[in-house]
Amino acid sequence: MSKNQSLGSKRNQERSCVALDGTGGDHRDTRPVVDAVRFALAMYPALDLIIFGSSQLKEDLLKERVDESRYSFRLAQQSIPQDEPPRSVLVNYKNSAMYKAIECVRDQEADSMISSGGTGPLVCLARHILGVQKLSDKAIKIKERLGYEGRSGKVRPCFAARIPTGPQRFSLMMDLGANATCDSSDLYDFALLGHSCAAISLELDNPRVSILNVGTEVGKGNARVQGARALLEQDRRIQYTGFIEANRLFCDDADVIVTDGFTGNVALKAAEGVAQLYAGASGMKRFFAKKARPDWLLPWQYNGSVLLGVQGLVIKSHASAGKEALAVAMVEAARTAQADLCTKMQEQLLKDQGKP
Amino acid sequence: MSKNQSLGSKRNQERSCVALDGTGGDHRDTRPVVDAVRFALAMYPALDLIIFGSSQLKEDLLKERVDESRYSFRLAQQSIPQDEPPRSVLVNYKNSAMYKAIECVRDQEADSMISSGGTGPLVCLARHILGVQKLSDKAIKIKERLGYEGRSGKVRPCFAARIPTGPQRFSLMMDLGANATCDSSDLYDFALLGHSCAAISLELDNPRVSILNVGTEVGKGNARVQGARALLEQDRRIQYTGFIEANRLFCDDADVIVTDGFTGNVALKAAEGVAQLYAGASGMKRFFAKKARPDWLLPWQYNGSVLLGVQGLVIKSHASAGKEALAVAMVEAARTAQADLCTKMQEQLLKDQGKP
Repeated sequence: MSKNQSLGSKRNQERSCVALDGTGGDHRDTRPVVDAVRFALAMYPALDLIIFGSSQLKEDLLKERVDESRYSFRLAQQSIPQDEPPRSVLVNYKNSAMYKAIECVRDQEADSMISSGGTGPLVCLARHILGVQKLSDKAIKIKERLGYEGRSGKVRPCFAARIPTGPQRFSLMMDLGANATCDSSDLYDFALLGHSCAAISLELDNPRVSILNVGTEVGKGNARVQGARALLEQDRRIQYTGFIEANRLFCDDADVIVTDGFTGNVALKAAEGVAQLYAGASGMKRFFAKKARPDWLLPWQYNGSVLLGVQGLVIKSHASAGKEALAVAMVEAARTAQADLCTKMQEQLLKDQGKP
Repeated sequence: MSKNQSLGSKRNQERSCVALDGTGGDHRDTRPVVDAVRFALAMYPALDLIIFGSSQLKEDLLKERVDESRYSFRLAQQSIPQDEPPRSVLVNYKNSAMYKAIECVRDQEADSMISSGGTGPLVCLARHILGVQKLSDKAIKIKERLGYEGRSGKVRPCFAARIPTGPQRFSLMMDLGANATCDSSDLYDFALLGHSCAAISLELDNPRVSILNVGTEVGKGNARVQGARALLEQDRRIQYTGFIEANRLFCDDADVIVTDGFTGNVALKAAEGVAQLYAGASGMKRFFAKKARPDWLLPWQYNGSVLLGVQGLVIKSHASAGKEALAVAMVEAARTAQADLCTKMQEQLLKDQGKP
């Protein structure tokens, strides 16, 4: 039985089991993790957790009387430094909480995993342990026709996140940092992944796919975005709606916004920085607490990026996430698993006709 | 007499003459330009204008009784399309308002020029008509030592703008879109230009220079930022303070923030998009009108990017700028000219010892 089919077998199950890497993040003490676990369990009654972490974390969960029927604890003291090189991550950190939590997904003990650890190690381990999803023959042919390598038929994984475009309305944006260097062919992969993900998670028949650029005119930008445009224009399965500028990111101009991991990471952090300044500006806080705040803009509510393109559900939480934000990401991990995102996306990706 | 010396001779003069390309921008009618001219003349009593534009603009200026002693009008009907190729811009648009306004700076009729037209044509014409500033021998040697071409000793021009970090406090950020494709050597040029500009316009002895990246750890990011870091670490004249993440752009963590033109453009537009959403959110407008708004964050106040690295002062206004924003940029153009930015920057750039 392939990994993929096995994940498929969990479809529509009632409970959702999330493996939590309890070691990552910027926080030294365990308090935010303990609080986040308690919040998440309360927010999402169908959630169960397998928690990997230090003996301190284990003690604190007991001390704070977090409901033991909802989680199991496994000791994994080892934590991977943010910028540990890939080779070392693969060889030297087999007992880390991150490694163990991803193995849980591979072994079908958990439906998804979540980590606040380093992006580099997380992507490296997810690709290695879970494997990468396949591209359709159609996509490979389009790439080859335009002079790009088919890359042995595998997709380039990317981080995607919901970005708010109004109360309870979202677009998806990717890549948010899985790849600091991308070419046009990678952007095309991200578009295929984003299109499939939006079709499933936003329940759209024909998502509008745009490429982030410095202007909307057809000739604008660099070779990377121009190449991606050419690839997307060849793919009739995708409704490509042109370039989008960053000041329109939150305006519902597109359902899927594609960019390289460097630019995407910077764009979203710039937006978050401004949102935080507005929320924290003097005199505003009190006012905001009561009325009129465009609550849907506050970034912590959208914590949790999904690593699209690997054969299992991997969610990244902000390293600096507070307890509420971490809880939100855990719930997102549970929901995504219940929607059976991973299996459905691979099915969509492999469709050669009509909408992918 | 070189162009550079001649600009220098205008130092400390009392009045400031700005050449205005009155044809660019997203607006079809002339009204925003006429209003902006009136505002700018009122805001900055030392400002005189040479206005290039259509006969319609000329008529409307007269009809609206804009003070004729403060401007002279020159007919230039031709307007350059946003994405006109460079070769065509140079050959086919010699009678355009943009071309003529830049010539005014070269011929010392005006101290600076301002346009809301396309970025590509503006950079192309500015480089061609005004010429490009020189790098110091030191900078060329550092580049060659690290395996980059000295590029015949010329700097790569970039757009810089003030970004707010508090009431009346600013950092400088560059490039904001003059170059959609940049390598490490270009980022080093931007850092040199930004450092010189901050020393003069922000009046800082030893500006803190940072590179925008997806993380602050030393190994983060792509080859472009890693190469730029290596170059900056070789240059003792510059206080390089490491990487900066985009959520800290408006927090006064650095005086000069260096990035490629693609990322810089996207980052600033993302920030502007969020600021506009907050300012426009329902129920907020009325409240904002009265109190507590972090006014210093509103993007229109910072309209006007300076093209650093060319031998004359060229200011770009947002194509979508309203009348207030365009007026702000005109005043910025006048102020920058009175500070004699261009000549002083070339002097700074050529210094081989100590602070550039």
